[in-house]
Amino acid sequence: MARPTEHEVLAAVLQIREGSLQVLAWQRARPPDEGRWALPGGRLGDDEDVERSVRRQLAEKVDVREVTHVEQISVFSNPDRVPGSRLIATAFLGLVPSDSDPEVPADTAWHALSALPRTAFDHAAIVEAAHDRLRAKLSYTNLGFALAPREFTISALRGLYVAALGHPVSATNLQRVLTRRRLLEPTGEVAPPGPAGGRPAALFRFTDRVLHVTDAFAVLRPPSEQLRGAVP
Amino acid sequence: MARPTEHEVLAAVLQIREGSLQVLAWQRARPPDEGRWALPGGRLGDDEDVERSVRRQLAEKVDVREVTHVEQISVFSNPDRVPGSRLIATAFLGLVPSDSDPEVPADTAWHALSALPRTAFDHAAIVEAAHDRLRAKLSYTNLGFALAPREFTISALRGLYVAALGHPVSATNLQRVLTRRRLLEPTGEVAPPGPAGGRPAALFRFTDRVLHVTDAFAVLRPPSEQLRGAVP
Repeated sequence: MARPTEHEVLAAVLQIREGSLQVLAWQRARPPDEGRWALPGGRLGDDEDVERSVRRQLAEKVDVREVTHVEQISVFSNPDRVPGSRLIATAFLGLVPSDSDPEVPADTAWHALSALPRTAFDHAAIVEAAHDRLRAKLSYTNLGFALAPREFTISALRGLYVAALGHPVSATNLQRVLTRRRLLEPTGEVAPPGPAGGRPAALFRFTDRVLHVTDAFAVLRPPSEQLRGAVP
Repeated sequence: MARPTEHEVLAAVLQIREGSLQVLAWQRARPPDEGRWALPGGRLGDDEDVERSVRRQLAEKVDVREVTHVEQISVFSNPDRVPGSRLIATAFLGLVPSDSDPEVPADTAWHALSALPRTAFDHAAIVEAAHDRLRAKLSYTNLGFALAPREFTISALRGLYVAALGHPVSATNLQRVLTRRRLLEPTGEVAPPGPAGGRPAALFRFTDRVLHVTDAFAVLRPPSEQLRGAVP
């Protein structure tokens, strides 16, 4: 018989802020790991499943209407991951579009993943798993919609992909691939000219704001979806 | 404070047998849900994480060397998913190649997903989630390697994809797509002629038996991996 366990949910909420991929964390005021930065979350309640729980607990740290996308990443279950009684975590990835600036509590702040302060427990590994999931899904789904404003220039979108992926991306190739996959469409409008003036840039939007796999393996889709061109 | 919980791991182990996708299950001999079919698994031990636990517990039902691929699917955490104390499950997908026939205990059998007997608790939903994951990953990864023998004809491979996806697949298109993505290569040998004779069919193998994303979104990969043509 296993010893009793407790269960928590934790969310790595990511947003691209000022050109860098950042994560929302709060500073622990009490031991263990006092002073270190922790992901939002907490114990699973008696009457909720993990999805409901993470949304309830995220709401204490951030306006959840600003969180465009939430998905389960993985269970973190090392027997020694926190001191004391056994605590198992279901970890989630959350995404906030780059043009929103949700209010957060006084103990909570955004931190660039490239300059993460000391994190509590195994939370740095959870952030890393969330980043891995984001990078992977940007490459085979339309998940870019969850990082981007509703309308954007290709140059701005390229900036978001570079920040999320951590390597150079060609704006021309990005536009070509996303257009060929019918993820992107022009709004017909142009962006207001910046302070430097110059030619006005066309505005685009994602054709869909519901996650789907976008790859070109259409031969393996059911015939009805091959015609529609998108997997729900 | 949440009430204490216990944690279990469960695996939907899938294999294509006699042309249909089947799942390994054992028949419960005691209440609750006596007589119903359950997925292999059990309580998380004190000294193990969920990955180690699922492999340990799978080993009681099947020779785990036959299980080519194991991955976490999702947490099942409905408060009422099993009667009595709260029990949270981490669910896994396992895959067995079509040419192996592992020994299983007397209470354990393979069942076609299309004709699943009455399952225990929420295990039918776990089987469905495993099937969804398999279908999705066949479309954007090389996961076919985990269902297939080491060497196969295109016709045999097509049969595996049809059984796993549940819809028609063209052998010509399948060969073209998998070859273009460099997932497939000819072994240089031909299959022994069948009882009906006819032209001997060329044998193929997967170029890699480690899971990777195979889609054509190469523009979003790091430059080094664009050259290699495969994401680890």
